[in-house]
Amino acid sequence: MPAPIQHVRAVFRLPVRVYYEDTDAAGIVYYANYLRFLERARTEWLRSLGFEQSQLARSHGIAFAVRSLAADYHKAARLDEVLTVISEIDALGGAQLTFLQRIERDGATVFAARIKVACIDVARMKPVAIPAEIRQRLQALKGE
Amino acid sequence: MPAPIQHVRAVFRLPVRVYYEDTDAAGIVYYANYLRFLERARTEWLRSLGFEQSQLARSHGIAFAVRSLAADYHKAARLDEVLTVISEIDALGGAQLTFLQRIERDGATVFAARIKVACIDVARMKPVAIPAEIRQRLQALKGE
Amino acid sequence: MPAPIQHVRAVFRLPVRVYYEDTDAAGIVYYANYLRFLERARTEWLRSLGFEQSQLARSHGIAFAVRSLAADYHKAARLDEVLTVISEIDALGGAQLTFLQRIERDGATVFAARIKVACIDVARMKPVAIPAEIRQRLQALKGE
Amino acid sequence: MPAPIQHVRAVFRLPVRVYYEDTDAAGIVYYANYLRFLERARTEWLRSLGFEQSQLARSHGIAFAVRSLAADYHKAARLDEVLTVISEIDALGGAQLTFLQRIERDGATVFAARIKVACIDVARMKPVAIPAEIRQRLQALKGE
Repeated sequence: MPAPIQHVRAVFRLPVRVYYEDTDAAGIVYYANYLRFLERARTEWLRSLGFEQSQLARSHGIAFAVRSLAADYHKAARLDEVLTVISEIDALGGAQLTFLQRIERDGATVFAARIKVACIDVARMKPVAIPAEIRQRLQALKGE
Repeated sequence: MPAPIQHVRAVFRLPVRVYYEDTDAAGIVYYANYLRFLERARTEWLRSLGFEQSQLARSHGIAFAVRSLAADYHKAARLDEVLTVISEIDALGGAQLTFLQRIERDGATVFAARIKVACIDVARMKPVAIPAEIRQRLQALKGE
Repeated sequence: MPAPIQHVRAVFRLPVRVYYEDTDAAGIVYYANYLRFLERARTEWLRSLGFEQSQLARSHGIAFAVRSLAADYHKAARLDEVLTVISEIDALGGAQLTFLQRIERDGATVFAARIKVACIDVARMKPVAIPAEIRQRLQALKGE
Repeated sequence: MPAPIQHVRAVFRLPVRVYYEDTDAAGIVYYANYLRFLERARTEWLRSLGFEQSQLARSHGIAFAVRSLAADYHKAARLDEVLTVISEIDALGGAQLTFLQRIERDGATVFAARIKVACIDVARMKPVAIPAEIRQRLQALKGE
């Protein structure tokens, strides 16, 4: 009897500190800067799986480029706060993947986004298949 | 016989130059920085109507804060390019408004976003009605 | 016979990862962004001594503002590199202090700066004495 | 009788508007961001002389990289202010040049810096002679 399929949702957590550089004159994190936090989290997740983007550019000529995003600003983050970026993969296609990323402070959601990222051939700026070794690591994460 | 209603869509255009500060190691504009261009355009539009945000903060204790956004990355913008941010108002509510903003290069869409902005009381960080004089200027724009 | 005076120079080390947001189209860290790394290091040093800038603003109405800096760019840092910001205090006056800050990669200096910071009364934007408890902690560090 | 040598100092002026993205939670322009304003001014000056950096990278394989700078922060600039970046060339060498750059608000100096920039071969990241056509345009500016 086969084991029931378990949809394990792998989640990656990255703490981020808010510095002056992240804030603006309204006293809160500038709205574009949450996207920097998200990108750090995606990069560190990939790194934790054994892949570095500068290395992928050299070895495979590829990069991951954001294609679309939808984001909600729930609360304002402020100087000196420690936030946590919580990332998971929502969908994994042949040449693109979709992340769900949420920024929390003390368990409350500050910012949440769904971000579609495409694997592109840097020289031609065209979509290309995600390298097999990365796909496998991501699929293993999803427990599929 | 009443005149047919004319939905005049006021549009504000702001040229933006891409500098090194806007780009990243992939040779293109960093994905979060398009949001900076959009915010410059919203600010200049408001200024062209006679309102400055620093003045509104002092006189009315208000600020405009982004509540949500949905964005599509169509093409990659690069160093030295001149882009145009084309903004229009999609919806005008009592305490919030929604912008459609598009960034073009030579007539082609590079980036497009729908951005919902709320008027907030800065001291309490709570939504508050858009000041009447701003509402009137924005409604006049929409030809309604 | 008295022990020889030992000029112990307290040094604070902060690792910093280079992300896409820090780089530019020349493929290297954008020249202004080294100053962000330095500021993170000064902030974390202060925090490690028990002081948070947002708290100092609320409790004492003060902030630390950079008055002058001199910097040398020795090497170019790149995407994915881990840098170390090494900070020490060069001079401690009544209302200002001078930091020596160096950014290293694998033991080689990438960037070095001397930065003079003043303690200011935020409301009046005027220099004011560094709070006694901070002075004492900084002086203790210097072994004086 | 020869005409007296006239040390005409060519000066380039660029207006810059302060947006939310430039400010921080202290309510003023973040200290690293003045360097972004300076770089925009150097770039626009070069462009006004007929040279674009992205074009120079493609045609000559060169870029201008900052080697050192010394800066003084005189006043704090704030949201919505219009600043003027006033640039002149202090020294022009074979492979490097030094700028004096000042940021003014209503005639008062907000920020001033001396910035040494080197012409580098991008592929080798080594200093290389400033292209003759650029040298000539810069020398003509200096009235030498």
